[in-house]
Amino acid sequence: MAGRLLCRSVGVLQLSRDVPLLFASRCCSHTEPEPLTVTRQSNGIRRIILNNAKKRNALSLSMLESLRENIRTGADCDHLRVIIISATGPVFSSGHDLKELTSSQGREHHAKVFNTCTEVMTLIQDVPVPVIAMVNGVATAAGCQLVASCDIVVATDKSTFATPGVNVGLFCSTPAVAIGRAVPRKVAMEMLFTGSPISAHDALLHGLISKVVPEERLEEETLAIAQRICRTSRPVVALGKATFQRQMAQGRDAAYATASKVMVDNLAMRDGQEGIRAFIEKRRPVWSHEAGKTHD
Amino acid sequence: MAGRLLCRSVGVLQLSRDVPLLFASRCCSHTEPEPLTVTRQSNGIRRIILNNAKKRNALSLSMLESLRENIRTGADCDHLRVIIISATGPVFSSGHDLKELTSSQGREHHAKVFNTCTEVMTLIQDVPVPVIAMVNGVATAAGCQLVASCDIVVATDKSTFATPGVNVGLFCSTPAVAIGRAVPRKVAMEMLFTGSPISAHDALLHGLISKVVPEERLEEETLAIAQRICRTSRPVVALGKATFQRQMAQGRDAAYATASKVMVDNLAMRDGQEGIRAFIEKRRPVWSHEAGKTHD
Amino acid sequence: MAGRLLCRSVGVLQLSRDVPLLFASRCCSHTEPEPLTVTRQSNGIRRIILNNAKKRNALSLSMLESLRENIRTGADCDHLRVIIISATGPVFSSGHDLKELTSSQGREHHAKVFNTCTEVMTLIQDVPVPVIAMVNGVATAAGCQLVASCDIVVATDKSTFATPGVNVGLFCSTPAVAIGRAVPRKVAMEMLFTGSPISAHDALLHGLISKVVPEERLEEETLAIAQRICRTSRPVVALGKATFQRQMAQGRDAAYATASKVMVDNLAMRDGQEGIRAFIEKRRPVWSHEAGKTHD
Repeated sequence: MAGRLLCRSVGVLQLSRDVPLLFASRCCSHTEPEPLTVTRQSNGIRRIILNNAKKRNALSLSMLESLRENIRTGADCDHLRVIIISATGPVFSSGHDLKELTSSQGREHHAKVFNTCTEVMTLIQDVPVPVIAMVNGVATAAGCQLVASCDIVVATDKSTFATPGVNVGLFCSTPAVAIGRAVPRKVAMEMLFTGSPISAHDALLHGLISKVVPEERLEEETLAIAQRICRTSRPVVALGKATFQRQMAQGRDAAYATASKVMVDNLAMRDGQEGIRAFIEKRRPVWSHEAGKTHD
Repeated sequence: MAGRLLCRSVGVLQLSRDVPLLFASRCCSHTEPEPLTVTRQSNGIRRIILNNAKKRNALSLSMLESLRENIRTGADCDHLRVIIISATGPVFSSGHDLKELTSSQGREHHAKVFNTCTEVMTLIQDVPVPVIAMVNGVATAAGCQLVASCDIVVATDKSTFATPGVNVGLFCSTPAVAIGRAVPRKVAMEMLFTGSPISAHDALLHGLISKVVPEERLEEETLAIAQRICRTSRPVVALGKATFQRQMAQGRDAAYATASKVMVDNLAMRDGQEGIRAFIEKRRPVWSHEAGKTHD
Repeated sequence: MAGRLLCRSVGVLQLSRDVPLLFASRCCSHTEPEPLTVTRQSNGIRRIILNNAKKRNALSLSMLESLRENIRTGADCDHLRVIIISATGPVFSSGHDLKELTSSQGREHHAKVFNTCTEVMTLIQDVPVPVIAMVNGVATAAGCQLVASCDIVVATDKSTFATPGVNVGLFCSTPAVAIGRAVPRKVAMEMLFTGSPISAHDALLHGLISKVVPEERLEEETLAIAQRICRTSRPVVALGKATFQRQMAQGRDAAYATASKVMVDNLAMRDGQEGIRAFIEKRRPVWSHEAGKTHD
């Protein structure tokens, strides 16, 4: 669980609607002038860009820590409404950095890499705003896991998806947690056993991604979805996302008990009532974005 | 669980194969001459028609209670073999009646609405006959949940499906219980977060519906499926439907233990043996439709 | 669970890479000169061929026992890398032999048939090598269950898939365990309630099979997948397959805990390190195929 993500770090991340901000990963050093990730936030949309094209945007420990920080920072602040994860270069992400997984690094380091990776992937699902992957290129192994972990995925038709770990002696067992819950089992198993890539079209067909677009429309289509989300009430979306994750882990009857109670709670929220009144009065709703309950 | 649905109310619902019957919802009043639902039963096929086109067949509390009664009444009687739910007008169902969900109605009323809705949706899955949705138009929110809850769905190519609650500040958390178990997660989440409708074609692709047909063939194709079901043994179908729901909620090994025992029980049924004998003797089976075990 | 499958029976099954071997089912007798299944193994690929075309490759108790033995024998030996199950004649398999399911056989015999069937189906998923179904024709009832239970399925475009038990009074409840976990629920339910076959194209669309090919390319495409698997490390694939089954039965957080630990264990394997070193050194890996851990 993501826990309570406080509005800290505002010195780093100015949470203004008007002033687009850029903050580099803290993981960059003097010998590495380019930040691993680039993050901007404006009008409620945070863009996190994997920025290590020459290393195929490998999810090194530093990259994972950078991603975790950039997703988590200010995740509970009202000005954040949606996160878009994209990448520079022709590879969205090639997965773990294999140089970090040699025996010389040791078992403890390996465990740290996979635990951090798990934290990032579950954080994406537990953070109170929708996370969209905007993919233009190859996503493999933990890079494919990252895609599978996002709530919505828009990809170009040239994008491909694979779990080729078996070919380097490291079966993609952690990516399989996310991918096995996104696509039919036989699709997942063929990907895992053969390492063969699947096309964007097949990924769409099987539910790994949400939409396929031509490259020139990738930004536009992704932003259109993000902007739709920005026009909704933040606490309503946060409640809905958390409830979806929760009830999907339950049996049917328990899931309905959970969700029915949530519906009643949702109606008690200020924005729950505002939305319904606006609908009845045939006007656009004016959201308070306050999570508290209404008493009117 | 639906519990034991007795052959009561036969004064209301004549369970004859020969005399088509019509019974109006008990919820209609003098000021509302049109019944909320219209129900007919003939030759084993019960047709329940949502009949409030001018209110977009909203699932008001009255409509839900009417649906519940019309599904439940006589559900255990031998003459009922299959239920078809359809609707008058261009909207299959627009979901809950938002006027019932304002704060002036109060929390208790809200809870009653969602609990009744859950009863209807789970009743559809627990009733001992298959339930088919015949859809020709828009199905949104709890209307989309109703579609997702039916065993089989035949829809025209102009039909669309959406969970737009987020746009009125009421996230479709209860519809998500049914839809999240019918389609891949990413499809469900995009529908829930954006409220955007999906086409009948995409709904078929992702498993939300079973068949897409041109409008002029909707009745014919739906009835063909219903008639196929009528040619099978009632208790065999009832056992199969209940077992499917039960084993799908279990792990693989427990599911096989459940299902293997059921297969042996099925073979001990009179119709289980009749079917096999008929197959071996190359003749059509003559079903007894008796649930009891054979001793021959 | 498959348990520990020892390298016994090597007198029956010569585990040589170079000498293709053929062993007939032990279930054939003097009055039945044709073996029920034909099994060959060469270059790591075991071919098991259902060989009772004139009985539509019915999964009689003898056939199931033969399948079980031919899958289990030597399953833990290093020379076995992948199993391909195919069939002679126009029917892949028609499911149980109904003559074995009459009341004259008795409840105990029925139970033995379904328990043996369950053993075969779960063995396919638990055996430490991938199992591929190569389908060219009709697969119905438990024959369709066999298809759904394999890890990968390659089928010709003329193949069809059905669960028609309901038509002979025996609902396909055990096939539904495998099929309900392979395809969307509504697809499974329409198949189960109506008995209608679905095409190879629809089976691919819904995740029941992995690939559709023209008949003349069936062998070639299936062998290409098998050979890809042969080029990987045996214990890495075995660990990956077992982990996939295990984590898919868990909730997300437990699944990640399982899989993260497995990734660290995988890296500690000799072949885990060899694969990574080979990748870094830009050479082909040389697998030891040893399951033990490395200490370098």
